[in-house]
Amino acid sequence: MTEAPLERRTVAAGTRIFVEGDPGDCAYLVETGRIEISKKLDVDEMVLGVAGRGDMIGEMALLDNEPRMATARATEMSVLVVVPKENFERRLEKTDPVIRRVLMLILKRLRAKTTEAARKAPVIR
Amino acid sequence: MTEAPLERRTVAAGTRIFVEGDPGDCAYLVETGRIEISKKLDVDEMVLGVAGRGDMIGEMALLDNEPRMATARATEMSVLVVVPKENFERRLEKTDPVIRRVLMLILKRLRAKTTEAARKAPVIR
Repeated sequence: MTEAPLERRTVAAGTRIFVEGDPGDCAYLVETGRIEISKKLDVDEMVLGVAGRGDMIGEMALLDNEPRMATARATEMSVLVVVPKENFERRLEKTDPVIRRVLMLILKRLRAKTTEAARKAPVIR
Repeated sequence: MTEAPLERRTVAAGTRIFVEGDPGDCAYLVETGRIEISKKLDVDEMVLGVAGRGDMIGEMALLDNEPRMATARATEMSVLVVVPKENFERRLEKTDPVIRRVLMLILKRLRAKTTEAARKAPVIR
């Protein structure tokens, strides 16, 4: 069975794609535009990075259903391809076991590094 | 065509699996044992981490053929599954395009984070 094509979503500048603490159930491939990733501190906000064409955001949701670790906001009109966790998992089931294992290990490692980086390197604005 | 099973390699304590600066052409899945990952500084050595059962080492070679960024040394007898880059690529070619894209993006991001972490957080011993 072939998977249905993935949904494309066009968002205006200022749109929050997801918010820290929200349940995470999908990732996004940035087709065009600019997405800022930030994290709340006590008073300020910490910018973790900026995603653009070809980047992926919210990919940790593909590994688990933990709440979003950061907020993603479009700083210009952007086009995103939505990758729902269930859709990703169905594709993964049909994947070569070596590829699958590598992917899950790398996702796990990236989560560990991301958590570590957020703890160590606040960029306050 | 089914891929041949991957080679398993048993290494004694003290064996260097790969050395910083070596050409990188495969990754390793740690089946049992303990592998220390370290990087040379001017005089000392910086321990980046320790890999154990279920972990993967040298996975950046699956993305490119850059030299090894660190040295991996078994600190006890270990069993490793060898994943050669060419074998991985053949498996990847047969993989769903969404899975493939996610995997390559995540590998790329992990490389960026690993480089960043090595620059920021020396653990000298």
